[in-house]
Amino acid sequence: MNEKNPLKETFEQTQFQLAGHGKRTVSILKDVVDQVDENIQSDHYGAGKVIDDFQVKMAEFLGKETAIFFPSGTMAQQIALRIWSDEKNLKKVAYHPLSHLEIHEEGGLKELHHIETVLLADKNRVIEFEDVTGMNEEVACILLELPQREIGGQLPSYETLEQISEWSRDKGIKLHLDGARLLEVLPYYQKSAAEIASLFDSVYISLYKGIGAIAGAILAGDEKFIKQSKIWKRRHGGDLISLYPYILPADYYFEKRSEKMAQYFEEAREVAQYFNSCEAISTLPLNPVSNMFHVYFSQPKERIATLLAEVHEESGVGFSSYLTEKTEESCYFEVSLGDLYADIPKEKMAQAFRLLNEKLSSAIKP
Amino acid sequence: MNEKNPLKETFEQTQFQLAGHGKRTVSILKDVVDQVDENIQSDHYGAGKVIDDFQVKMAEFLGKETAIFFPSGTMAQQIALRIWSDEKNLKKVAYHPLSHLEIHEEGGLKELHHIETVLLADKNRVIEFEDVTGMNEEVACILLELPQREIGGQLPSYETLEQISEWSRDKGIKLHLDGARLLEVLPYYQKSAAEIASLFDSVYISLYKGIGAIAGAILAGDEKFIKQSKIWKRRHGGDLISLYPYILPADYYFEKRSEKMAQYFEEAREVAQYFNSCEAISTLPLNPVSNMFHVYFSQPKERIATLLAEVHEESGVGFSSYLTEKTEESCYFEVSLGDLYADIPKEKMAQAFRLLNEKLSSAIKP
Repeated sequence: MNEKNPLKETFEQTQFQLAGHGKRTVSILKDVVDQVDENIQSDHYGAGKVIDDFQVKMAEFLGKETAIFFPSGTMAQQIALRIWSDEKNLKKVAYHPLSHLEIHEEGGLKELHHIETVLLADKNRVIEFEDVTGMNEEVACILLELPQREIGGQLPSYETLEQISEWSRDKGIKLHLDGARLLEVLPYYQKSAAEIASLFDSVYISLYKGIGAIAGAILAGDEKFIKQSKIWKRRHGGDLISLYPYILPADYYFEKRSEKMAQYFEEAREVAQYFNSCEAISTLPLNPVSNMFHVYFSQPKERIATLLAEVHEESGVGFSSYLTEKTEESCYFEVSLGDLYADIPKEKMAQAFRLLNEKLSSAIKP
Repeated sequence: MNEKNPLKETFEQTQFQLAGHGKRTVSILKDVVDQVDENIQSDHYGAGKVIDDFQVKMAEFLGKETAIFFPSGTMAQQIALRIWSDEKNLKKVAYHPLSHLEIHEEGGLKELHHIETVLLADKNRVIEFEDVTGMNEEVACILLELPQREIGGQLPSYETLEQISEWSRDKGIKLHLDGARLLEVLPYYQKSAAEIASLFDSVYISLYKGIGAIAGAILAGDEKFIKQSKIWKRRHGGDLISLYPYILPADYYFEKRSEKMAQYFEEAREVAQYFNSCEAISTLPLNPVSNMFHVYFSQPKERIATLLAEVHEESGVGFSSYLTEKTEESCYFEVSLGDLYADIPKEKMAQAFRLLNEKLSSAIKP
């Protein structure tokens, strides 16, 4: 069945790993269940204390009238765009060419909601104010993803966000925030979630990325919007009889990690510097603006895979379990800093990067 | 906020309850998590041992090539009907007027999939062979719900199922089974799940009804069908990064309860007899064919609510937490037998029903 995969196998045997919060095992759930009252009543088709309380908390955090818990961001965002499209009776929205909706959802927005899309900006950079004002087509909604994940987690300036927000309001175009990693960019912008969310008509955040819960998403907006989103949640098959197995962990890990984003951000900058000091590596962005970035190698994937596997075995520090081919002569992987990084002894880290750099240097100059 | 609701309040304070498996609290999840290895790896967007193993087990149980776990039956069934509609290039399906898809899903099938529906049979009875052969319109798929929940859980004869199946195959019409409560009807039909499923092209079963898990559904069929359903699952936003918080309980409670359906069925017949021996009550169906039935009172809802609340307080046996108005002069509630019934001492039961009957008798003949 499975091909041998030395990169993945050696990674899984390292004592320390650079990124993430650790393995996604049942213990993530067990740690939560062990410390909550087992007599807590399940939510019931979107109602009940366990879901109400968390939704109120998230609405407050995001500075919106109300919020609703969804099993997935895919569902939440398609629904947001559908509601804004229906309101304007115009089934067209604009977003980045590498938006999650465009490349990871099997075309759900088009196949289920028949919404056309306008792709803003070149795929290798973030959306700027001029991309928005230069649109030739009328749209019901613009979706901005902060940070733009597929290009390493890049951000427009805060002033650009304000410009786009003001312009959209003037034009009667709704602005939706794909804030899958919104918490992760707060330290860079030096803003609260509510301040950023105030620029948008609707906001989605994920609960299993920086926060590291099991699954689930929050969609927030005004009451009329959220009331409609509940109807669409039912239509999508997302209004489950019980969502508490996701809600309780979301709340637990939100409490545990929402205040740690500045730490992850600083660590990301530190790790990116380590990478950028190596031969044939550059990070995207060069200077991270969140806890994430991409690590690019100007060498073929197969060569780097072999080399990283050796570093894993010799250093005991795991860099990545996979590599993605960019061109025949380059490849990359994604790094998102989490709880694990702080556990790596500094000397161990320095040693692993020295080893990586040595191997890269000899690979390049044979 | 909440109005006073003596029926619900008195029900919640009873020592014994007639129906169900008990309160849907966090303990349902805790009991499972406590006995599984916390090092089990999460599934990952529909892949991984924890989801694969359960899907294989369910495919075998249902005698189908393959099966897929869905967060909800709403999602699974819309998708099944969409696949069959697309295959025939005909966006029209037929089902019972009280199908879950028609009355409980905010029109998802129409709003998301633009599938038209033909309503078969009068809403007060099950679909018979003549309803199917008498259809004036061409459809891509027929959905049969076994048992028909909204009319108390009634069933057509097994011969009728065989006739409809053969006829549909001859006509090139797909047959889909809404088997939300399929396990619950096996004792009546005296057939295996696979035998019944063999009459259908695709089958859905629920994991939180008779089985009593937390949420989730299985959709089973041939490989081509399931392959497409995975794409639609992604589009709907149901392809979560982790579904194990539902899968592990589904597996646990399937093992615990799938063999107990004959017991629940027998108990349902016993309890229905108790009800039918009371004044002004008749069950639908009179003689249950599964673990479920409806209890009809030929008296106004408010009067029965008061009376039931008294019985709850005086007997300590809970009949129902709610009543649904049928007409101004009649009302009903639903009963689904589960683990709780066996805990009620026989004498306690008999006493509760005597009390109920006395109160009903005096209410009717003042």
